[in-house]
Amino acid sequence: MKKYDLLVIGAGPGGYAAAAHAAKQGLKTLLIEKQHLGGACLNNGCIPVKTLLGAAHFLQQIKKANLFNIKVEKAELDFNALLDRKNRLIKRLQKGIEIFLRDSGVETLFGAAKLLPGKVVAVSPPSRGVASASGSERTDLETSAEYTADNIILATGSLPGAIPNLQPDGQWLLDNIQLLQNKTIPSALAVIGAGVIGLEFADLYSRLGSKVTLIDVLPELLPQEDRAAVDLLQKSLERAGCRFLLNRKIEKAENKTLYLNDGQTIAAEICLLAAGRRANTDYILDPAVQKTAKGFVSVDENLQTSLSGVYAIGDLNNLALYAHAATYQGLAVVDNLRQKSPRVINQTIMPRVIFTSPQIASIGRYTSQCQQTPLSLLGRAQTENQTEGFLKLYTDEKDVIVGCVIVSENADALIGEAVALINTRTKYTDLKNFIHPHPSWAEWFGL
Amino acid sequence: MKKYDLLVIGAGPGGYAAAAHAAKQGLKTLLIEKQHLGGACLNNGCIPVKTLLGAAHFLQQIKKANLFNIKVEKAELDFNALLDRKNRLIKRLQKGIEIFLRDSGVETLFGAAKLLPGKVVAVSPPSRGVASASGSERTDLETSAEYTADNIILATGSLPGAIPNLQPDGQWLLDNIQLLQNKTIPSALAVIGAGVIGLEFADLYSRLGSKVTLIDVLPELLPQEDRAAVDLLQKSLERAGCRFLLNRKIEKAENKTLYLNDGQTIAAEICLLAAGRRANTDYILDPAVQKTAKGFVSVDENLQTSLSGVYAIGDLNNLALYAHAATYQGLAVVDNLRQKSPRVINQTIMPRVIFTSPQIASIGRYTSQCQQTPLSLLGRAQTENQTEGFLKLYTDEKDVIVGCVIVSENADALIGEAVALINTRTKYTDLKNFIHPHPSWAEWFGL
Repeated sequence: MKKYDLLVIGAGPGGYAAAAHAAKQGLKTLLIEKQHLGGACLNNGCIPVKTLLGAAHFLQQIKKANLFNIKVEKAELDFNALLDRKNRLIKRLQKGIEIFLRDSGVETLFGAAKLLPGKVVAVSPPSRGVASASGSERTDLETSAEYTADNIILATGSLPGAIPNLQPDGQWLLDNIQLLQNKTIPSALAVIGAGVIGLEFADLYSRLGSKVTLIDVLPELLPQEDRAAVDLLQKSLERAGCRFLLNRKIEKAENKTLYLNDGQTIAAEICLLAAGRRANTDYILDPAVQKTAKGFVSVDENLQTSLSGVYAIGDLNNLALYAHAATYQGLAVVDNLRQKSPRVINQTIMPRVIFTSPQIASIGRYTSQCQQTPLSLLGRAQTENQTEGFLKLYTDEKDVIVGCVIVSENADALIGEAVALINTRTKYTDLKNFIHPHPSWAEWFGL
Repeated sequence: MKKYDLLVIGAGPGGYAAAAHAAKQGLKTLLIEKQHLGGACLNNGCIPVKTLLGAAHFLQQIKKANLFNIKVEKAELDFNALLDRKNRLIKRLQKGIEIFLRDSGVETLFGAAKLLPGKVVAVSPPSRGVASASGSERTDLETSAEYTADNIILATGSLPGAIPNLQPDGQWLLDNIQLLQNKTIPSALAVIGAGVIGLEFADLYSRLGSKVTLIDVLPELLPQEDRAAVDLLQKSLERAGCRFLLNRKIEKAENKTLYLNDGQTIAAEICLLAAGRRANTDYILDPAVQKTAKGFVSVDENLQTSLSGVYAIGDLNNLALYAHAATYQGLAVVDNLRQKSPRVINQTIMPRVIFTSPQIASIGRYTSQCQQTPLSLLGRAQTENQTEGFLKLYTDEKDVIVGCVIVSENADALIGEAVALINTRTKYTDLKNFIHPHPSWAEWFGL
């Protein structure tokens, strides 16, 4: 049985970053991946969805080009060419990760891992279909083998959540992974679950011409998010043709139709199941690694599981289901492996972005003290015909900026200033003395 | 002679902000403006140029829509409709300033001011043509009158610079104010002076189809700016059809042709004279207010002129010719009027943006220690087909971030994070521990 300093299971944004960080510091590190480098983020999430949304939003802008005094005769999206470009981009970025891992000194092994008692990881060869799909040069395991290490990081992420009696069939009822492979734009799309994934797909397909109906069991959209931000987003999606049916349950699904508990029926060409995420834990065969009631892996404040030397990062621990949270956790765990007194893994300043139109970007916590600046006050936005949106900065009792929410088309760029302000504990009155350039988007923080 | 607590001459971004700030604090404040609210920035600079550039850059993006798998049959810009929109936007923002001043308690007087000895300001009625052009409700002075105050802020800005033997004729040789009124897109445009104004107009007209030739006496473009940034910009403009003739002098201009000292002749339908700026000081008739060799108003570290109680802010003092510098200076001078020990008016962290394609946004100072991140490493940029550009962060000997330059299409949004980092004296290693959202534009600072 081969021994390493560190085993990392799962090559998503948490796992591959952790492995590279460890190997660069001289730890003999083995990274084990069942399928593709990059995890859900690169293969089925962040990158592909943003690529599709980028094209859909650009198409929408072109259709409104008259606002910029530009007359466009006809604009048509070639959806299959877009899917091809998305797939090529994924392969290019996978290749980039492969090179990054090699340059960092990580050994990468493609195979299906099992975590056995005694910190033993058994790896069996991947299924052939999966291996060939990656398209990158790689050496797959030929026969099963076992590995061990003093420290093991579990970074296997999450999978699409399930609802009883609603199993994706790959034909009509699709999860987000399956929908991303679908080569047509449905005339009518039903979306079960109006969380971030459901909203981004609803935005995408409504901009591309689908009639979209979102159904959620909760009485309000994104309950944890700023209400005014959510209202603006909902109105924008409604203008794009989305219909929201909140506070409803699905009674059954039959003949391409959803039957709701209020008696309504929703006929759809395709139905997306976007009902949360569940932890990818089937491979954990050591009962010493305990799980939460929801099936995620329990961790302490250092992200160590109930088994000493075994850590769980990223979606798997359910602390914050974001790629950047996984990366941060992975790097922090590796840093702490080498230190006698581990540093606190502070995740209170976690930014998040919903890549709809408009985007909602937010960070930190919302207090009762808030300074709001409407987008219409920003000269730069006026030059670009954008007036719907706002910036809110939340402060604590000492005037320190502790939270921010931005609603605008480019909120994912602007949130960077809030990242810096909140991490540096800057006071709101001090911010007002910082000189921002005119007439820039950055000036919004200075108004 | 009516006496005020504060007289402000010039209602540009420095003057109107200072007047409003003073009036809100209870100072009896009179703001005197010869022409239009908003100054060069709103009427002939920032806002109109960015509005035109916004449309030109959008047209350019539409022409490359195939990169997003979108086929566009024909896209045409209606230049006159664009000029009309630009003019309507200016009027709307002037109206906004008018309301802001009224709500702040400022008395605004439209008329031509003269600064006479003894801190007396004589104001004569504006010429009728000018007055009616504003389009906003306002009361103009009917007959001349004199005013005085303990404190006077001069905020009259700058005017297009001149070159001996090259006087704008309003027909062929135009300054930037005149070119903004020109209703056609010239087939060939010559630009004298390849500074920021010249570059932005060259970018604009080359995107709209003009063949543009830039001529400058200096041997290199923007000598104070990061060389790699300037190189990227020059290459982008050359791809758009701009030609650069640096290190050249104009011998004469005749028959719509420029004759250069190297023997070349440049024929052009229109020629833009963008050769720097000169201070607008003709109205200063009190010799106690001293000027610099270049004709700007001399000021001390509190922006006070050689005459006690008289201050010069904005372009007039030549410290930093930016709208946001003028605003900052105006607010700081007013703050200091009310304090026994004036606070230091720190202008070392001055951001600046060139709104070309790509943009160059920069701030602070450049040191020999620099961390550079190419745009191609950013996943978000990849989803938008943008790979040309970079982010550089400059640090001092203590690892504190002291400067930044960003080259990208949306640098004016991203520079906000650098504003916060530099003003808070954040260390580069600390920045690397801030969590940035993935896959966002803001993530560029976290890579």
